[in-house]
Amino acid sequence: MNDTLSLLMNHRSVRKYTDQPVAREHLEAIVAAGQMASSSSNVQAYTVIAVTDPDLKNKLSAHAGNQAYIRECPVFLVWCADLSRLKKAAKTHTPDVPSYEGAAENFIVATVDAALASQNAAVAAESLGLGIVYIGGIRNEIEQVSETLGLPDYVYPVFGMCVGYPDPQHGAGLRPRLPLEAVLHMNGYSEEQSERGVEAYDETSVRYITERTGGQRTSSWSEQMAVKLTTPSRMQLRAFLESKGLNKE
Amino acid sequence: MNDTLSLLMNHRSVRKYTDQPVAREHLEAIVAAGQMASSSSNVQAYTVIAVTDPDLKNKLSAHAGNQAYIRECPVFLVWCADLSRLKKAAKTHTPDVPSYEGAAENFIVATVDAALASQNAAVAAESLGLGIVYIGGIRNEIEQVSETLGLPDYVYPVFGMCVGYPDPQHGAGLRPRLPLEAVLHMNGYSEEQSERGVEAYDETSVRYITERTGGQRTSSWSEQMAVKLTTPSRMQLRAFLESKGLNKE
Repeated sequence: MNDTLSLLMNHRSVRKYTDQPVAREHLEAIVAAGQMASSSSNVQAYTVIAVTDPDLKNKLSAHAGNQAYIRECPVFLVWCADLSRLKKAAKTHTPDVPSYEGAAENFIVATVDAALASQNAAVAAESLGLGIVYIGGIRNEIEQVSETLGLPDYVYPVFGMCVGYPDPQHGAGLRPRLPLEAVLHMNGYSEEQSERGVEAYDETSVRYITERTGGQRTSSWSEQMAVKLTTPSRMQLRAFLESKGLNKE
Repeated sequence: MNDTLSLLMNHRSVRKYTDQPVAREHLEAIVAAGQMASSSSNVQAYTVIAVTDPDLKNKLSAHAGNQAYIRECPVFLVWCADLSRLKKAAKTHTPDVPSYEGAAENFIVATVDAALASQNAAVAAESLGLGIVYIGGIRNEIEQVSETLGLPDYVYPVFGMCVGYPDPQHGAGLRPRLPLEAVLHMNGYSEEQSERGVEAYDETSVRYITERTGGQRTSSWSEQMAVKLTTPSRMQLRAFLESKGLNKE
């Protein structure tokens, strides 16, 4: 196994950090690595906002379920899908022609662009000895987060990412994933493989959660997923996206 | 610069491959690395279909703008956002409770999960000496692609990815990206940085495209983006997603 594969295979989310700040050159190297990820037709439809200001981190944390690690990490990155540069280009060069920033297609393009860049950045950060954790919680109060960061139209914050040097006293183990056969299918979708994989994973996940919580939680992955999917979450998102001119046709 | 950073910074899309097949163990290592990417609340809401069957690759190529590299690559990966395992879990464990697989929130979760896994897989593939190119074209005729692959409800193909050993006779240069200042903002969104970055990039992109096409194309990035955003593309996507039970509330 080469060093890069080994790095990828050893990823775990890091939620506790030392006091060491992230050097500006490292932040730039991380985002530059993000930029080298593929981008659909080179649209590069994302912007990342690096939050280092303590007050701003506190505010964002308050809007994202009060997660302490957003306040405590030295750098909090907010990865935004951003079609505003494209919209401006269309306004400048083809002002009298209708444009399609509101199409589901362009919503997917921008969301995926942001995600590919962020994952490259995550890998780059880990290669520099940093740890990260993705934060979906910034979609809890997405309107307030957007206002706090001054996001213009055609931009939305997809997720956050805490970055910092891992506190060695809080190392976490690797979390087991679904068996490969559940997610890798050959030459066509196999519901049978998916189901068999989930059955096996349910057993794994019970053992993992029981051990990790000292027996306080014992639910299987399927049970956890049933709770997750039947709990309404961030239902204002669609209306918010439409208000920003996104995902509406 | 460490080996992983150097790998990330040297990414380019590869569209011509040698005849060397991709060993099953490498395919599995690539997808396993994808699985180690972060996943929102551990939902792992994606499935990847590895297409090696020549007839199937031909069909998919025909549905994706006839791109030759889909036919010619040894393995074509179709990365799908997949909420079907979650839906099944909800049906099994909480059959009488409404579930929210149709929410924009879960659409984003599944799309991002697929993208993070795919980018880890791309990095893993490149670390093994393989080359890749993302294929958005599978969204051209997304309904036919879904039928061809037998995708069930609550699943959609986000993008494809050709994987193979790069043909050394067709090495491409690095494509310049937007200046860092355009995409990395500190403590708040800066339209001014975005605009200044695009201005500089317009000059870079004219030089790059002029050189790359021997003067046949000379348009700036902004001009290309104006054309892109004013060209209706894949406008059936929203209706298709709704028909699959996705992105509808």
